[in-house]
Amino acid sequence: MRMVDLIQKKKQGGKLTRDEINFIISGYTSGEVPDYQMSALLMAIYFKGMDKEEIANLTLAYVDSGDKLDLTAIKGIKVDKHSTGGVGDKVSLVIIPLVAAAGIPVAKMSGRGLGHTGGTIDKLEAIAGFNTNLPGDKFISNVNAYKMAIAGQSANLTPADKKIYALRDVTATVDSIPLIASSVMSKKIASGADAIVLDVKVGSGAFMKSIDEAKELALTMVEIGKSLNRKTIAVITDMSQPLGNEVGNASEVKEAIEALAGKGAKDLTAVALTIAAHMTVLGGAFPDFEHAYNELERYIMSGKAIEKFKQFVEIQGGNPGFIDNPASLPKAKKHIEVKALKSGYVAAINAEAIGVAAMLLGAGRKKKDDRIDYSAGLTMVKKIGEYVRAGDTICILHSNLDEHEEAEAMVMNAYSFSDSQPSPIHFVYDVVQ
Amino acid sequence: MRMVDLIQKKKQGGKLTRDEINFIISGYTSGEVPDYQMSALLMAIYFKGMDKEEIANLTLAYVDSGDKLDLTAIKGIKVDKHSTGGVGDKVSLVIIPLVAAAGIPVAKMSGRGLGHTGGTIDKLEAIAGFNTNLPGDKFISNVNAYKMAIAGQSANLTPADKKIYALRDVTATVDSIPLIASSVMSKKIASGADAIVLDVKVGSGAFMKSIDEAKELALTMVEIGKSLNRKTIAVITDMSQPLGNEVGNASEVKEAIEALAGKGAKDLTAVALTIAAHMTVLGGAFPDFEHAYNELERYIMSGKAIEKFKQFVEIQGGNPGFIDNPASLPKAKKHIEVKALKSGYVAAINAEAIGVAAMLLGAGRKKKDDRIDYSAGLTMVKKIGEYVRAGDTICILHSNLDEHEEAEAMVMNAYSFSDSQPSPIHFVYDVVQ
Repeated sequence: MRMVDLIQKKKQGGKLTRDEINFIISGYTSGEVPDYQMSALLMAIYFKGMDKEEIANLTLAYVDSGDKLDLTAIKGIKVDKHSTGGVGDKVSLVIIPLVAAAGIPVAKMSGRGLGHTGGTIDKLEAIAGFNTNLPGDKFISNVNAYKMAIAGQSANLTPADKKIYALRDVTATVDSIPLIASSVMSKKIASGADAIVLDVKVGSGAFMKSIDEAKELALTMVEIGKSLNRKTIAVITDMSQPLGNEVGNASEVKEAIEALAGKGAKDLTAVALTIAAHMTVLGGAFPDFEHAYNELERYIMSGKAIEKFKQFVEIQGGNPGFIDNPASLPKAKKHIEVKALKSGYVAAINAEAIGVAAMLLGAGRKKKDDRIDYSAGLTMVKKIGEYVRAGDTICILHSNLDEHEEAEAMVMNAYSFSDSQPSPIHFVYDVVQ
Repeated sequence: MRMVDLIQKKKQGGKLTRDEINFIISGYTSGEVPDYQMSALLMAIYFKGMDKEEIANLTLAYVDSGDKLDLTAIKGIKVDKHSTGGVGDKVSLVIIPLVAAAGIPVAKMSGRGLGHTGGTIDKLEAIAGFNTNLPGDKFISNVNAYKMAIAGQSANLTPADKKIYALRDVTATVDSIPLIASSVMSKKIASGADAIVLDVKVGSGAFMKSIDEAKELALTMVEIGKSLNRKTIAVITDMSQPLGNEVGNASEVKEAIEALAGKGAKDLTAVALTIAAHMTVLGGAFPDFEHAYNELERYIMSGKAIEKFKQFVEIQGGNPGFIDNPASLPKAKKHIEVKALKSGYVAAINAEAIGVAAMLLGAGRKKKDDRIDYSAGLTMVKKIGEYVRAGDTICILHSNLDEHEEAEAMVMNAYSFSDSQPSPIHFVYDVVQ
């Protein structure tokens, strides 16, 4: 088998066999297939695509390239959740206690943030004492005892995908649905998930800018799940503006507590309940989505949800005091109000720019080893559809830095106004299963 | 400027500016742009193409990447000729004396053969004493005195194209018309040509398998010529079978002499006269193609052409004795007749397979530094359209090797037969200018 012949085959629209895909991925992981042949193949895949079977085989090849987490010691159906990434996305913080409260094990492996999107691990580390480096046995015993645990990824999962992702990043081959879908699904499968709920974000802060693209990605991932015997549901949710009102690590924890206490932002609550409901149905706690949704809503109203979150913080070594006293979370020294220059309805928000502004304020990382300021971030005072008078505050920046003009200007430019009221935004666009 | 953004631009069908193309080519030549980004861009170019201006800028960037031959010391319009490569292609051997006899300077830089196609330098070196390493001043003074000289390429011409060609070869990006056209034209321009006649071969022994593809390549190269102020004419000629009857270095020299003496194969004579006539018109020797063609035909009939060839051999240090006594050219020891298994018309010949068979017999190189056996090759006894009875000899292999079964089988398989007579083959399909 010669790599050049396989590139030629894909370039001409041919279908790569399982053996061919294994040859490519194992060859590239070992270094026998050079970067320059892999990047030519990736560009050919961008143009010619892959069919269901090729994508499933690519996913498996990624899984087989590294370690696989063994979660067989955990009782019950392990349902994992993955978001394709957005701004202000604190959904995982809300769903972990909700799903666990329903008795479904949540054994969550999560990542750190990079660029305009945050990471769940970073957010939780804003809580004093919260430990995301649980030893393997503690992780498993916590899930069995309390139905929940979270840890940063430490095992060598899907190294082929990591190496290929780095190459895609510098060869303009990131935006290929077969490559995105196999990358996401391989990580979930290597992490030991029995079933998967995908939160596919769409809009200005998401990778997918149109609902059609988001649906195609969702469908592709659901099909991979089917091929590999993992029940998979994809929920397409709005990312045309940040989710909720807070962007920043400590403030997102605060906003998640509010949602769990029944006082959360409507969009966040709707998206979190939808995803958690699908997870509990897949896990077997409830017969259908409607039952699940109603029951989880009751957990919020009854205080069961917030109690479960308190337990979650405690079993991870954190101090839950901030739950009753959110003022004890890290706070920035400066609060800069961004004011509207003219009156009108907020018509659109460039959520990616909001994410970048938060990063500039210290809430995120430009490069992998940048340090995070947990107190930095911003509060979306006005969101799409709201009427604003000239001089009204539309957003408040929270910062400990001396320089914040660039972030201010970005936020200002991120807002668009209109004289007529825009049509209301849907929180959840579609469910693919 | 970032290479990844330029890959993205081309991937989306955008047009690369002159500055962007220069950035890419100089960066790749110097090693700042890595192979893996270049190969991704090449694949994007394969799918999205390039427009006239981009192709002209790419050609110039190739030319500027290395040395340029300075032929200003040569009087008159330097008209160069290039073939896209075929089997039995001894056209250059015939046109050099013909064009020079018309007073038009032929300062020929030529290459060696690789794979199934031969090289003009190899063919001439089958002549005892023939020197293809003329010093620069001797080369120039020969062209001024006799209107002809040939040399192997020694200068560092278009190194960017060489480096990119090597990458294309291993990344399945050879068959891109913008990349082929800029590669060919940059070499001719760096070699100092004022005007260019291109022999675009089409058929089983050529890179272009269909007339449409050949026309597109021809048109693209003619447009580059126009953009860069080099008068360029492309002649599309047949390569559905070897040109003439001989394949092999010494035997092709012999066949070229026959053509110059008026006893040549019809296809070879027609193609050579057509190309030589266009060259002499571009050089200003004759007012139009018809005059030129008739006059050059007269050179053949009068003996002027063969005399000029004799002079060509002499001024390059060769012994012209073989012209009157072709038997003195190198001869193989063995002659193996390939016989038809059944009766019928020769319907098609896989000319590439014939070229590979000749190479296996020793006439060509598999790898760059393989040695050539000038006497090896084969004679096409039967060509397309001829009627053959079972047992008739269709081809004779000439070899000094013990093993020739593989070549024999290839030749046998290269012939297809039919019960009905195929329509006659055109030697010249079209002229693009």
